[in-house]
Amino acid sequence: MRDFAQDHRWLSINTATVRKQRGQDWPLPHILDACAARGIRAISPWRDQVAAAGLDAVARQVKALNLELSGYCRGGMFTYAAAASRQAVRDDNRRALDEACALNAACLVLVVGGLPGALDGKPAHRDIGAARAQVTEGIAALLEDARARAMPLAIEPLHPMQAAERACINTLEHALDLCDQLDPARSGALGVAVDLYHVWWDPKLAQQIARAGRERLLAFHVCDWLTPTRDLLNDRGMMGDGVIQIRQARGWVEAAGYAGFSEVEIFSEHWWSRPGDEVLDTCIARHRGVV
Amino acid sequence: MRDFAQDHRWLSINTATVRKQRGQDWPLPHILDACAARGIRAISPWRDQVAAAGLDAVARQVKALNLELSGYCRGGMFTYAAAASRQAVRDDNRRALDEACALNAACLVLVVGGLPGALDGKPAHRDIGAARAQVTEGIAALLEDARARAMPLAIEPLHPMQAAERACINTLEHALDLCDQLDPARSGALGVAVDLYHVWWDPKLAQQIARAGRERLLAFHVCDWLTPTRDLLNDRGMMGDGVIQIRQARGWVEAAGYAGFSEVEIFSEHWWSRPGDEVLDTCIARHRGVV
Repeated sequence: MRDFAQDHRWLSINTATVRKQRGQDWPLPHILDACAARGIRAISPWRDQVAAAGLDAVARQVKALNLELSGYCRGGMFTYAAAASRQAVRDDNRRALDEACALNAACLVLVVGGLPGALDGKPAHRDIGAARAQVTEGIAALLEDARARAMPLAIEPLHPMQAAERACINTLEHALDLCDQLDPARSGALGVAVDLYHVWWDPKLAQQIARAGRERLLAFHVCDWLTPTRDLLNDRGMMGDGVIQIRQARGWVEAAGYAGFSEVEIFSEHWWSRPGDEVLDTCIARHRGVV
Repeated sequence: MRDFAQDHRWLSINTATVRKQRGQDWPLPHILDACAARGIRAISPWRDQVAAAGLDAVARQVKALNLELSGYCRGGMFTYAAAASRQAVRDDNRRALDEACALNAACLVLVVGGLPGALDGKPAHRDIGAARAQVTEGIAALLEDARARAMPLAIEPLHPMQAAERACINTLEHALDLCDQLDPARSGALGVAVDLYHVWWDPKLAQQIARAGRERLLAFHVCDWLTPTRDLLNDRGMMGDGVIQIRQARGWVEAAGYAGFSEVEIFSEHWWSRPGDEVLDTCIARHRGVV
């Protein structure tokens, strides 16, 4: 297992973690400068942050700062109520792939979508089985585009508490079943993003990480589960402040062959209220001490 | 599949649903009278409510009103930090069994416990594997007491968002694995409580309900999952107000051999703020129209 205590060469910052500082938007170019100034070698930015700064400008800055992208957030949202939306979903995901390529990302992370409309509080129906069928179909179609661009797709199972609104793939086992169905050759074009926040509770976690193996383990995200958790979306904890056995899980993914970055992804009103520099320094310290 | 539209003979009220009305405690004797007055034939009371009214008095009232108990809430909380607590946990669960017997309950529902101390915001450790080992040991020991009293134990898998604080058994599959380990003969002494709020999201739900079968399906609880859900504990929805395919799931449990009550268990600040009579009438209407 790699020793993270000596340096933070394997730390990546998901830029949602510092999308705000002191409660105000922190523009992506500033985030990237602040990361590079600390010797952070990798990031994982969100599409809206990239769009706000301009794709070309971000691509130039990433290159100038010698940053890598441990992933690009995010594609997916494959479910729809009206058949007419299907093509729009695919087109949008193709654009996400193109952006991921322009930024030389390691993979495009997929948040697959839940019941259509549920995110706006108006679910069009209750048929989660139908939503899952649309997800399967959507990934199958996008996989062709992804292969053509040599950009791997990483299915991220989200916590079951987000099944209705954000993602109806909620366990690593389910995500890997989908991988086996759509990419039985384990080509590397399709895999998973293991975000411990979403899967830490799963009694089959170790088993499914081993099943995933090197070809399927495309990203590894860390934060922590707080007790109590006060919000279903924006109350994630800093590594070490909660109950997830992070180092144990890192041992599992490394034993399975993963040798990439450990990406900090924290959605937290608390951390968004703090100075961005403080948050990044804390991420580094916890990466060394806890992850 | 049974027709629930014509009457509500298979409705049971988990009394937590109306533990408060208009924001004030509603005493259990009043709840029981209000249920009986509506032709509700079954309830599932909580230990603290029974204790407040007195076990003997409640037992007499239940008998006088000809009420059945679809379950008794609850035993469990098997995890502990100090070894000295182990005997206290077992003793308390034996008392719960005795109360369940005095009330002639169909089963004792088990909420198995999470990380010790986490419910108070002070987890003693992060080792969910160790917590699960204590749960297995605790159920194994209690099972002897339960067999001696002919009182079935129903393991209730809780939603993964409650893994740290309330129950580290979070899927029906995990609960049934435990049943197979501790009661391989499928004697009827150990089974599961299927609460749709906790398991609706699971892609293996239908498969695991079929696996459970008649001998293991000891209770069936319903409410609904709201979008958005604003609280991890007390924002459950009334049947029909959320996204759970309740009737489909009832079809699965009945196909697997379950022929007992459909128990409404709603923890909701909203419904606790309403008049208790209104809540009970709504439960009856939704039981007929939605469940």
